[in-house]
Amino acid sequence: MGSLGDKYAIVGVGHTKLGKVPGVSSIGFNVLAIKAALEDAGLTREDVDGVLVKYPTSGFSSLFSGKLCQALGITNKLMAVIDLAGATIGTMVQYAAMAIDAGLATTVVCSYGDNPLTGPPGTYGRVNSDDAAFGFVGAPAGYAMAARRHMKEYGTTSEQLGAIAVAFRKHASMNRNAQMQKPITLEDHQRSRWVVEPFHLLDCCLVSDGGAAVVVTSAERAKTLNKKPVYVMGWGQAHPAWDIAQRESLTVTGAKRSGEMAFKMAGVSPKDIDLAEIYDCFTYTALVTLEDYGFCKKGEGGSFVQNGRIELGGELPCNTAGGLLSESGMPGMLLLVEAVRQLRGECGPRQVNNAEIAIASSQGGILTTHATLILRR
Amino acid sequence: MGSLGDKYAIVGVGHTKLGKVPGVSSIGFNVLAIKAALEDAGLTREDVDGVLVKYPTSGFSSLFSGKLCQALGITNKLMAVIDLAGATIGTMVQYAAMAIDAGLATTVVCSYGDNPLTGPPGTYGRVNSDDAAFGFVGAPAGYAMAARRHMKEYGTTSEQLGAIAVAFRKHASMNRNAQMQKPITLEDHQRSRWVVEPFHLLDCCLVSDGGAAVVVTSAERAKTLNKKPVYVMGWGQAHPAWDIAQRESLTVTGAKRSGEMAFKMAGVSPKDIDLAEIYDCFTYTALVTLEDYGFCKKGEGGSFVQNGRIELGGELPCNTAGGLLSESGMPGMLLLVEAVRQLRGECGPRQVNNAEIAIASSQGGILTTHATLILRR
Repeated sequence: MGSLGDKYAIVGVGHTKLGKVPGVSSIGFNVLAIKAALEDAGLTREDVDGVLVKYPTSGFSSLFSGKLCQALGITNKLMAVIDLAGATIGTMVQYAAMAIDAGLATTVVCSYGDNPLTGPPGTYGRVNSDDAAFGFVGAPAGYAMAARRHMKEYGTTSEQLGAIAVAFRKHASMNRNAQMQKPITLEDHQRSRWVVEPFHLLDCCLVSDGGAAVVVTSAERAKTLNKKPVYVMGWGQAHPAWDIAQRESLTVTGAKRSGEMAFKMAGVSPKDIDLAEIYDCFTYTALVTLEDYGFCKKGEGGSFVQNGRIELGGELPCNTAGGLLSESGMPGMLLLVEAVRQLRGECGPRQVNNAEIAIASSQGGILTTHATLILRR
Repeated sequence: MGSLGDKYAIVGVGHTKLGKVPGVSSIGFNVLAIKAALEDAGLTREDVDGVLVKYPTSGFSSLFSGKLCQALGITNKLMAVIDLAGATIGTMVQYAAMAIDAGLATTVVCSYGDNPLTGPPGTYGRVNSDDAAFGFVGAPAGYAMAARRHMKEYGTTSEQLGAIAVAFRKHASMNRNAQMQKPITLEDHQRSRWVVEPFHLLDCCLVSDGGAAVVVTSAERAKTLNKKPVYVMGWGQAHPAWDIAQRESLTVTGAKRSGEMAFKMAGVSPKDIDLAEIYDCFTYTALVTLEDYGFCKKGEGGSFVQNGRIELGGELPCNTAGGLLSESGMPGMLLLVEAVRQLRGECGPRQVNNAEIAIASSQGGILTTHATLILRR
C-alpha cells in the first residue's frame, strides 16, 4: 500500500431541485443528480464504470444499486450500496478511490437521492421501542441530550447555537438552490418553538426531497477533463460506540479521530483550512465537530461560532451554501458539492476568496459514525 | 495501484447454528459468527479493526453496522454496511482487502447474520407490484424464467437440474452442520412439488436463520496466525442490467465477466480449480454459473453436472458442504467458509483430496449482480 492522498479527484458535481419535490422516486433523484454531475464533468454515462449509492429512507431493497444502474443505463459496471447513515457520503468517496486504486473501475459516481417528504413512508419517524417508553424518540432527542451535556460542562448557550443557524441562513440567502433563503435573526431563532430542549425549531435541519452526486476519478484522468480537478488530499473515518453508556464522553464525537486521520493523511492542520462544510443535522453537531476537528479547544465551540467567525468573510467560513439547516436536509452530499464548487471558485456572491483547501464532514448515529474529506483545488 | 492478488488472506471462518433457530436477533447471529471466526483465527476482538456487514432481510436501519459494532465491543474502528443482495459476500471481501490496502484497517471481519425464519417480517416474500399483476412474484419466478430459456435454447432437462440437487444433498449428508442431511434421489427430486415450473421444491434453496463470518488480513500478518492462511488470489465483480429486456442474453449471467476478471487476476484458468463453491439459490443458478465460469461450454451445463462430475471424487467437486440447497440458505457466506476449510484440509469425510485452489461465487438479482473469489491454500 501507498498513501492514496492526492491520487484521486472529484471532477464533477451535480444536484436536483431541493425541497418538497413531488413525483420523483428516490431512483429518479439519483438519476437526475448523476446526470447533472456527469454534465458538469463533461462526461457521459459511457465514461462511468462505477456507481456507489446510499440507501434512501424508504424503499429498501437489496437490489437498489442494480435498479439504479439499470435506470441509468450504466450496466455491467462496478456498483454497490454503501450505508453508514449520515457518514455515508464521505465514506463512499473513500471506497470509490479505493476501488479505482484496486483497478475495479476508473470513474465512479457517488450518489444519494431520496424523497422523504413526498415519497412512501420510510424510516423517518420510526420509533425505537426500547427508548420510546422513556419518551426518548427520534434523532432530535439524542442530539439534544448531547447538546445539553455540552451546555452543562462548558456553559454553551442557546444563543451560541443560534449564531450557527443565523450564519448558515445568511449563506443560504446567497444560494438560489437553497430550500430556505429568507435571512433570520438570533431573535427569530430564540423565538422559534421548542422541538426538544435545548433545540428550537431553527436548531434542526430540514427534511428534503432531492438528489446530489459527485464523480471521482484518478488525478491523472482528472487533468484531461473540463473542470479544474478538486483533489482528495486526505480522508478519515471513525465509528465510536453508538450506545451512550459505551462512549468515552458525550461531548467527544467521531469527528475527533476521523479528523485526525484526515489531517495526517493530507499533511495539513486546521490552520490551513480555508473553508469548512460541516454536517449540521443540528446546530450543535456543527459546533462540536469544529471543536473535535481542532479549530478551537474542547468546550470553546460556543464562543468560536460567534461574532461572524464562521460566516463568509470570517476566519473560517462554514456551510457556505446553507448546510443541512438551510440549503437541504439531504445527509451531507450537498456539503461536498459546495466544497468542490468553492475550490473551483464557482460560488458567485458566496465565494470564499482564494479558497485552496476545504474540509467536509459527514456524520450519523448521534455524533458517532463519522467520515472526513480534506480537499484542495 | 498494483495488483492485490495474493496480498490478502482469510485467516478465520466461523458460523452459528443453521436452520430454524428462534430467539436470536440478526445482530446476535452476526456477533456469534464473528466470535467463532475470531476463535478460529486465534484472534480476539481487540485484534479487529474493521467490520463489514450485509443488511439482514428485516430490521433495516442505517445504523446497523454501528449497532453491530457496539454489540461486539469493537468500536471506533472501520465499519460499513455493504449490500448487493446475494453478491454481497464476495464483494465485501474485496472491499475488506481494499480497505486494508489503503491503510484504513489491518484485520477486517466480513459477516452476515439473519433470522428470516423466526425474526420479524422482512423483505422475503415482498411483492413487486409492477410484476405481480402478471403473476410474476418473488425470486423463484425470475430464476425459473431464465432456467426455462436455457431448457429451450440448449435442451437442458429437469433431470439435469435434479442431478445438482442430489449431488449437493449427498455432500450435506457428510456435514453435521447442514440443515438437510438426509440423502435424496433423482426420483425424490422429480416427485417433489412444483414451486414454479421448471423448479420443483428440491430445485429451490433453503431459507435459514444463522450467521457466518470470515476474517481478512494481510498475507504478512496471516503468516503469524494459528491457521494456514487461505490467500485471495483473484477477484471479480460484474453487474449486468437487472431488467431482463436490457440483458445481453437471459442465459448469460454476471458470472461470465466476474469470473473472467477473477481468473485473470489470479493467473489461473478453470482447469486449475480443485473445487467450486457455487451460489445455488436454485439448481439452475449453479448450472449456468459453471458454464459462465468456463468449466464447460455454454449450453453444456446440463450434461456437465451429471454422472458425478460435480460430486466429491468427481472432476470438479462443487458445494462440498451442501450449498444453499442443502446446508443453509444464507446467501453465500457459508460457501466461502467451506472453501476455506477445504483448502485447509479440515473437512473430514467430505474433504477434497489435496485441494489447492478453489473458486467461490456470490450472486443476486436474478443472475445479474455477481462476485467471484479465487482462493489458494
